Amino acid sequence: MSVLIVGSTALDSIKTPKAENPRLLGGSASHAAVAASFFAPTKLVGVVGEDFPKKYIQLYKKHKIHLEGLQILPGKTFHWSGEYEVNMNNRRTLETELGVFETFNPRLPVAYQKSDFVLLANIAPSLQHHVLTQMKKPKFVVADTMDLWLNIALPDLLKLLKRVDGFVLNDSEARQLTQEDNIMAALKKIHKLGPKYVIIKKGEHGAILSTKAGLFVSPAYPLHRVVDPTGAGDSFVGGMMGYLSTAKGSVDNNIRRAMIYGSVVASFCCEGFGLNFTTKITRPAIEARVKELERLTRF
Amino acid sequence: MSVLIVGSTALDSIKTPKAENPRLLGGSASHAAVAASFFAPTKLVGVVGEDFPKKYIQLYKKHKIHLEGLQILPGKTFHWSGEYEVNMNNRRTLETELGVFETFNPRLPVAYQKSDFVLLANIAPSLQHHVLTQMKKPKFVVADTMDLWLNIALPDLLKLLKRVDGFVLNDSEARQLTQEDNIMAALKKIHKLGPKYVIIKKGEHGAILSTKAGLFVSPAYPLHRVVDPTGAGDSFVGGMMGYLSTAKGSVDNNIRRAMIYGSVVASFCCEGFGLNFTTKITRPAIEARVKELERLTRF
Repeated sequence: MSVLIVGSTALDSIKTPKAENPRLLGGSASHAAVAASFFAPTKLVGVVGEDFPKKYIQLYKKHKIHLEGLQILPGKTFHWSGEYEVNMNNRRTLETELGVFETFNPRLPVAYQKSDFVLLANIAPSLQHHVLTQMKKPKFVVADTMDLWLNIALPDLLKLLKRVDGFVLNDSEARQLTQEDNIMAALKKIHKLGPKYVIIKKGEHGAILSTKAGLFVSPAYPLHRVVDPTGAGDSFVGGMMGYLSTAKGSVDNNIRRAMIYGSVVASFCCEGFGLNFTTKITRPAIEARVKELERLTRF
Repeated sequence: MSVLIVGSTALDSIKTPKAENPRLLGGSASHAAVAASFFAPTKLVGVVGEDFPKKYIQLYKKHKIHLEGLQILPGKTFHWSGEYEVNMNNRRTLETELGVFETFNPRLPVAYQKSDFVLLANIAPSLQHHVLTQMKKPKFVVADTMDLWLNIALPDLLKLLKRVDGFVLNDSEARQLTQEDNIMAALKKIHKLGPKYVIIKKGEHGAILSTKAGLFVSPAYPLHRVVDPTGAGDSFVGGMMGYLSTAKGSVDNNIRRAMIYGSVVASFCCEGFGLNFTTKITRPAIEARVKELERLTRF
């Protein structure tokens, strides 16, 4: 089965204490789609401007990502620039130029409307709604988000949560959304908002999944060097949905392993700027790290 | 086999946003010894004043902790008072009264000198040295520490690290000691200081063990409510050493599981003030959480 991914397609200018990289391929949908592409046919929905470099189109194509849903419109591609602090955990946005994203109206090609697995990657909740409305009975829908939408589009997000199966957010967003410091208390409150599958991402500390069947405490792959964590969360959820969409059996039976695969792709993402490292890996490299995570967590 | 534990034996006055509890039984050796006592005969080395409540002696005895090495001296018992912030992660010391601890000279009873497993729980490194010097060929020695000793007794601590098998510290202490933000880089530097087994504690995010055989990423038991985290780290290392000292086979073969047991005792510790909850649990309750952690982490 294939996975449909909607989100931002952007140019990212990323500054760290050690380097500066202008106008890399970025955006939640780009990271998630490349991550998913290691496991499943992936359909991208997004928008870019006429300035979008052809080499990035080629990069999508190299990963066999379906681009029928990628609109190329007059104007500029969404551009984000940000800077990381020394410890690579805190980042601040230097500039955001919405460009063609300002008026983005995601329209699904007919061939996309019957996708079973849908990832509403980080993007305005109103656009996530708009995509979902065009889908015909998807099997498993997961939404990601970011603190910005909690601040400026909370009502839209809360409406969305009633329509999705799974919701992914990071620990600080979970605390902001629920006003609970304790993760377990936060999970309980988030379930009450709608989603049956809630995943709280904790960066280098892994992630925690909560479902009716119980919890899963998922490890992160320990990295010796973090070059740029931009897109790691998107890679995690993209890899997870890609793996899920092709695994045999129920979502319940596969989601733990899917998170491990997502976590491994995210680890590769952190080892290069933007998508530089993720686009160089292979499925065997992913399998090797999954095996290593098995060894690292066995007791 | 038995485990020998030296550290502080104290009265703790603990304030949280929800409650205030004066003069509870506390100190690194108290927490570690009670935790170890669930698994192995435990020998305590410490000092208290004449004001030390008899009920706390009874509590040690209830846990079958050997008290031949507990000195009761004229003067006051070490008293610490501290306050936790709302999220229970940050705490500040309100007052420290050293009392009889100021001139503590840990002397080992002859019966203690041949213990195979030795835990130098958090206490001044010079005292940890002093205990170690009195031991006759211990099999496995682990030292714990705290940021205070990194600040005021670093040379002593560095000398100690050359004499121990294992070293346990938390993530912020590891960063302080090595000036490395990345945990993997910090682990590498700490091994160079001497210990073959290095464990970095990450509180609610679990712990990571590094040995020649590789890494172990150890989960924390997810808690719905943290009442008081004081002593959780001591309980972790105490439980670990207690389990290790009675497990059949090599340290290498048992240390992962030992960390899981330590982690479970630490989780109980957080559910009550001081030792209130830890002293109420039973071995079957520990086994049940170990089994649950297996389920929570399997993929």
